[in-house]
Amino acid sequence: MIFSSSLLENAVNEFAKLPGIGKKTALRLVLHLIKQDESSVQQFSAAIAHLRQAIQFCNRCHNISDTAVCNICGNRSRKQEMICVVENIRDVIAIESTQQFNGLYHVLGGIISPLDGIGPEQLTINSLISRIENEHITEIIFALNANVQGDTTVYYISKKLKGIPVKITTIARGIAFGGELEYADEMTLAKSISNRIPVENYITTGN
Amino acid sequence: MIFSSSLLENAVNEFAKLPGIGKKTALRLVLHLIKQDESSVQQFSAAIAHLRQAIQFCNRCHNISDTAVCNICGNRSRKQEMICVVENIRDVIAIESTQQFNGLYHVLGGIISPLDGIGPEQLTINSLISRIENEHITEIIFALNANVQGDTTVYYISKKLKGIPVKITTIARGIAFGGELEYADEMTLAKSISNRIPVENYITTGN
Repeated sequence: MIFSSSLLENAVNEFAKLPGIGKKTALRLVLHLIKQDESSVQQFSAAIAHLRQAIQFCNRCHNISDTAVCNICGNRSRKQEMICVVENIRDVIAIESTQQFNGLYHVLGGIISPLDGIGPEQLTINSLISRIENEHITEIIFALNANVQGDTTVYYISKKLKGIPVKITTIARGIAFGGELEYADEMTLAKSISNRIPVENYITTGN
Repeated sequence: MIFSSSLLENAVNEFAKLPGIGKKTALRLVLHLIKQDESSVQQFSAAIAHLRQAIQFCNRCHNISDTAVCNICGNRSRKQEMICVVENIRDVIAIESTQQFNGLYHVLGGIISPLDGIGPEQLTINSLISRIENEHITEIIFALNANVQGDTTVYYISKKLKGIPVKITTIARGIAFGGELEYADEMTLAKSISNRIPVENYITTGN
């Protein structure tokens, strides 16, 4: 792409560094911004600069935060004895958006994956264990992806917790709402049969 | 989507205002930026703010420019007597990228489209005509999209130029390189037959 303006070229190149944004999309976004009034472009630019300068990670659960302790950890009306263990910040946002969980979180910052060179020491597992030991936690819920890495991580942490009186659960696996049985993979279908639930429970929790 | 950080929420909302970017994509982009080092995020933010503050439109051809006259119009080694008329800035970039055109441009800023409420007076047509009258232009090439609006615009401007001794051409229409005949629409195929070119010309210009 040949530009007649170096300001334009510069902005397009910056946008094209973002994941999943190619040169043509970058150009479309930049030309959109040029058409906006100056104050809204300043607002866009300032929101990004300010985010990167001011953002912190909660020193308790490692979630993204505006303050040293995030507003989930700081909310005393949430159940302080229940921790949901997730891989990353996106998972916190996804679970929060369901409005079904009222405990605390712990963000591992990844998942054990030797092939990618990620071992337990790169994750916040030690911090999780010290929270469980010191904060009177009664239940931890693993909400990790259902794959080999997720299972390895659950297994590793569960082993570390041996001897500590804490209930360990994982989120339910099964056929998604609206999912069709005939297209479900065998593993999911098999698990959904072996972990079947009484109809009374389904009606109260499922709807 | 429920966020635990208002800085994050703010940045995601700003990104989600861009065309074709939804909330989930916006979140992905923002989390990517958080992972980058601070200087490169500042650079991104500054490139956008600076662009919007400093960008101008060339007062000759209405192309986007860093200066009052763009560097295409200011380049004396380009053919000063040939103007390629395009709808928007994106088209200038597309044609420049082919490196096949060495004349000047004129950006109309749109196309005549009564249904969208765009008439000739909203476009830079008067400025084009005064350029043709005053700058010793010998040829204008219309590079507009091949649709009713494009054809209307070509027809309107051509009529306005009656009596002015200037050669008026449009870019060739035909089957694209790599395009398959059987999938071409009838109009394009019909035009490509009626506007057929001698093989000698094809070999020198087409390859």
